[in-house]
This record gives sequence, structure tokens and C-alpha cells, in this order.
Amino acid sequence: MAVAKPKGKESTKGLIVVFTGNGKGKTTAALGLAFRALGHEHRVCIIQFIKGSWQYGELEAAKIFKPLLDFHVMGRGFTWKSDDLEKDKAAAREAWEFAAQTIRENRHELVILDELTYLPHYQIIDEEEILAVLRDKPAAMHIAITGRYASEALIELADLVTEMREIKHPFHNGVKAQRGMEF
Amino acid sequence: MAVAKPKGKESTKGLIVVFTGNGKGKTTAALGLAFRALGHEHRVCIIQFIKGSWQYGELEAAKIFKPLLDFHVMGRGFTWKSDDLEKDKAAAREAWEFAAQTIRENRHELVILDELTYLPHYQIIDEEEILAVLRDKPAAMHIAITGRYASEALIELADLVTEMREIKHPFHNGVKAQRGMEF
Repeated sequence: MAVAKPKGKESTKGLIVVFTGNGKGKTTAALGLAFRALGHEHRVCIIQFIKGSWQYGELEAAKIFKPLLDFHVMGRGFTWKSDDLEKDKAAAREAWEFAAQTIRENRHELVILDELTYLPHYQIIDEEEILAVLRDKPAAMHIAITGRYASEALIELADLVTEMREIKHPFHNGVKAQRGMEF
Repeated sequence: MAVAKPKGKESTKGLIVVFTGNGKGKTTAALGLAFRALGHEHRVCIIQFIKGSWQYGELEAAKIFKPLLDFHVMGRGFTWKSDDLEKDKAAAREAWEFAAQTIRENRHELVILDELTYLPHYQIIDEEEILAVLRDKPAAMHIAITGRYASEALIELADLVTEMREIKHPFHNGVKAQRGMEF
């Protein structure tokens, strides 16, 4: 199969892409971006802010792409129990500081901040702190952010925003999550 | 990193998943599903109904996953010029017959029908013919369908439907498509 390389002068402007909304496919779309970028032999870093939201399949697939793909499971999964909340917040802060550092180090063409939006939404991280890092990102770096509740300010800053709207979900019909699909 | 295998009895019910709407991320989300499924060493078949909509990055990435991933570029790209329209239609019909055959042969855990929805929408394929194949799909097979204009009947048949809504698009701001992102 003949495949043409993309035409035209390659731009160096990296995009900020947001996948938000209540529907399925936000993290999945970010994974698809990673898949594409890895096909270009771009270096990709995925930082997962909510522990446990990624499953066996993608973690195994991620191994296939080493060393191009760095994958970091941060955070704790947000128990929202009062005795654990402070630990959750500390883990979230540590994850964000790691992400900010990763962006500044500029070793990747694409950085995926999976479910980052929950941190400002639940006031664990001041959103202005996040926006400041995004505004100062390396010019050529693409950053993809997923999660519900993307704020107006984040949408304003982003280059491309898609809202995933749930039209129909199998859990409504009593179907359990399927291995290999993992919705 | 310790990764737990999914808990619980594995179900054999395959899902029909639809990514539709005018926003970006439909094909990308399907790619993410492929990435996950390949991580489980599931066999995946991707059939692209609109030639040219997939780019260099994903085609290169797809090669990494051979022999688990079959990738077929069918169709012609819909020129909509009167002298080419019959050729477009014939190519689309051939692609659909290949897809129907692939589903019946049951050699894959996941079949992705990328941009299939345009065929019934533009009355190139009778939708009832497509729905009949989907209703009779192998029970354990997952099928993911992408494209705008998903019909009521397809949504009714599907297990999971997400509408991708465009909130903001870089082309509106005069930014060209980026290599490795390819929106």
C-alpha cells in the first residue's frame, strides 16, 4: 500500500487539544492521538491523573511502543473519603508537578494529561497554575487534555476542543464492561 | 508497574459502538479502541471506507502491530464529480461487501468500520443491508463504526453511541493540520 508523506512545510506550532464532555471516547481519542504520533516516531508521554481509569489493554499496548512512549500512572483514584482526601490531594499535586516538569523539559512531541480536568474542577489544583504552564509550553509540543468539566478558560486557551456527548451507553442496558473495550 | 488483569468472568457479548457527530475524535477514538484491543492481543480489522482520510502516522503505527492488525483502505474518497460518481459508488459497494464478508468470517475480536455512515447517508448502500449484517454479527465480536450522520436505526441497534461535538477547531483560527496530530 503506497502511503504519501504529508504534504507541505511542516509547521512547528504544537496544538492544545481538549476532549471533554460526559460521553465515552475522551481517553480513547487521546490514545488514538498517541497511536498516530508513535507512528511518526514521535515521543509521547501519557500522564494519568486518576489511578485505575486505565486498564490492562492499553498498558500492555503501551509496552509495545517503548522506548518512544512514557507512561505514568499518578494520583490515587479519588476515594473522597474524609480520611483519605488529604492523601488524594497530595498525590494529585505530586502528579501535576510531575506533569509541569515534563512539559518544561520538552523531551516529547506529544504529552497527554489524562483526566487532568478533575483537578481544577474539584479545586485540588488552582486552574491558573495549570493555564500558566500550558501558555508557556514548548512551542512545537502538542498537549492533549481529557476529562469532564473543561472550564471556559481552558477551552479559550485550547486550539481544538471536542465535547463527547453520551447518546447511548451499554450500562443502561445492563451490559458489563468488556475486555478489550473497557468502556 | 503492577497491572491487574480485569476481574470477573469474561463476557462473550461483543458491543456495537458508534462514534458520530461533527467534532474531531471519531476515527481517533476508534484507533484508541484498536490500541487497547491489540494490547490484549486481540485481532483487529480496520476497514476505511473513505480513501485518504487516514494519514501516514496511523498507517505506520498499524505496521507495528502486524500480524494482529489487518488494515484495509477501501473506497475512493468520494469525488462527487458526475463522471466519477459511478466509480465511487462501485468502490464503496465493494468495500461494504468486503466488510460484510470480514464480519461473517469471524476472524477478529474487533472490526472497525471507519466512516461507514456516509454510505447509507448518501444512499450508496441501503442501510437495511448494513443493519442486517450487524444484527447477525458473531456474538463475541466488537464492531466500532465512525462517521457523521449516524441514523436513528443505527443508534437504536448500537450498544454505545457517543456524539463528538465540535466546540473549537484550529482551522477556524487559521492553524494548519499538524504532522502527528492530523486533525
